[in-house]
Amino acid sequence: MAHINLNNDLPGIRGLMSFRPEMSQPLNEFAEQLLRANNSLSRGERELIATYVSYLNDCYFCQQAHGGIAQYLLSCSTNFIDDVKADFQQTDLSPKMKALLVVAGSVQRSGKAVTKEQIDAALAVGATEVEVHDTVLIAAAFCMFNRYVDGLGTWAPQDRNFYIERGKQRAEEGYAHYNPAH
Amino acid sequence: MAHINLNNDLPGIRGLMSFRPEMSQPLNEFAEQLLRANNSLSRGERELIATYVSYLNDCYFCQQAHGGIAQYLLSCSTNFIDDVKADFQQTDLSPKMKALLVVAGSVQRSGKAVTKEQIDAALAVGATEVEVHDTVLIAAAFCMFNRYVDGLGTWAPQDRNFYIERGKQRAEEGYAHYNPAH
Repeated sequence: MAHINLNNDLPGIRGLMSFRPEMSQPLNEFAEQLLRANNSLSRGERELIATYVSYLNDCYFCQQAHGGIAQYLLSCSTNFIDDVKADFQQTDLSPKMKALLVVAGSVQRSGKAVTKEQIDAALAVGATEVEVHDTVLIAAAFCMFNRYVDGLGTWAPQDRNFYIERGKQRAEEGYAHYNPAH
Repeated sequence: MAHINLNNDLPGIRGLMSFRPEMSQPLNEFAEQLLRANNSLSRGERELIATYVSYLNDCYFCQQAHGGIAQYLLSCSTNFIDDVKADFQQTDLSPKMKALLVVAGSVQRSGKAVTKEQIDAALAVGATEVEVHDTVLIAAAFCMFNRYVDGLGTWAPQDRNFYIERGKQRAEEGYAHYNPAH
């Protein structure tokens, strides 16, 4: 049960968004722009950054929910998602994605942990300035979403297949008109 | 100079918002709802929570910018803002605000650092469930904004009076139609 009475039994951020729709509307418009709008980073790549940061923040709901979306969008296996979390440098991700995940990992610790060298390394292997910007903002945004979900003590289904099955629907429907009850 | 080329010389989040207006629009609508919409927490109280979290995250731009707004809205002194940062328990803030700042401080560390006891303590001294919810979301949001501003290495004017003078204008104009160039 959540730390406050949400008047619903929805899991994770869904319970919070149903409790406080005034906040969920701008948050979902932000998520739509951040994770789904036209971008040279694919939707799957952006969801993977979100998954990795949520894993670093140990937020079960977010890492499984966005991991399920990333897995669907990238047409990859559950094992690949786990390999990225465990040690993305050992995966066959592109040098650009690896460099961006280094930046995202620093953002998770602190804004001040990001170095110019880490960003220059990403630019050197082909990341654009917008891609670097968006990676920092995605990582920062999930430091918010993860704290929101865990700070209010929401519950999360423990069966990973729940999230994998929902990943396809969430990936296709997007966030802008998100109905937390569905 | 920021870690990426922003094509402008605006400080803090203003330079980022000018660089990437697609993101700044939903972010500003979120900030408007979070910090300025009708709420039993006053605008000044919400800006004070934002200031305190930005201080804990050591984000100079955000703590001064929102500190200037809080100072204007609360009609308090610069010393009072500093006292809240240094040890809010020793100030004459209400028991409710002190309990909410305890929750906000936990959110800054990690969502999982927030305890049911901290939240129950806030409810016991008169905080509503919505006020607790909004405190967690404000604290989480500034863990995003602070990382966004510092993760991209933006610059910040060092003269505190710059922020105090701007606080009145920002407090009155709000965020929804924010023009980062002004």
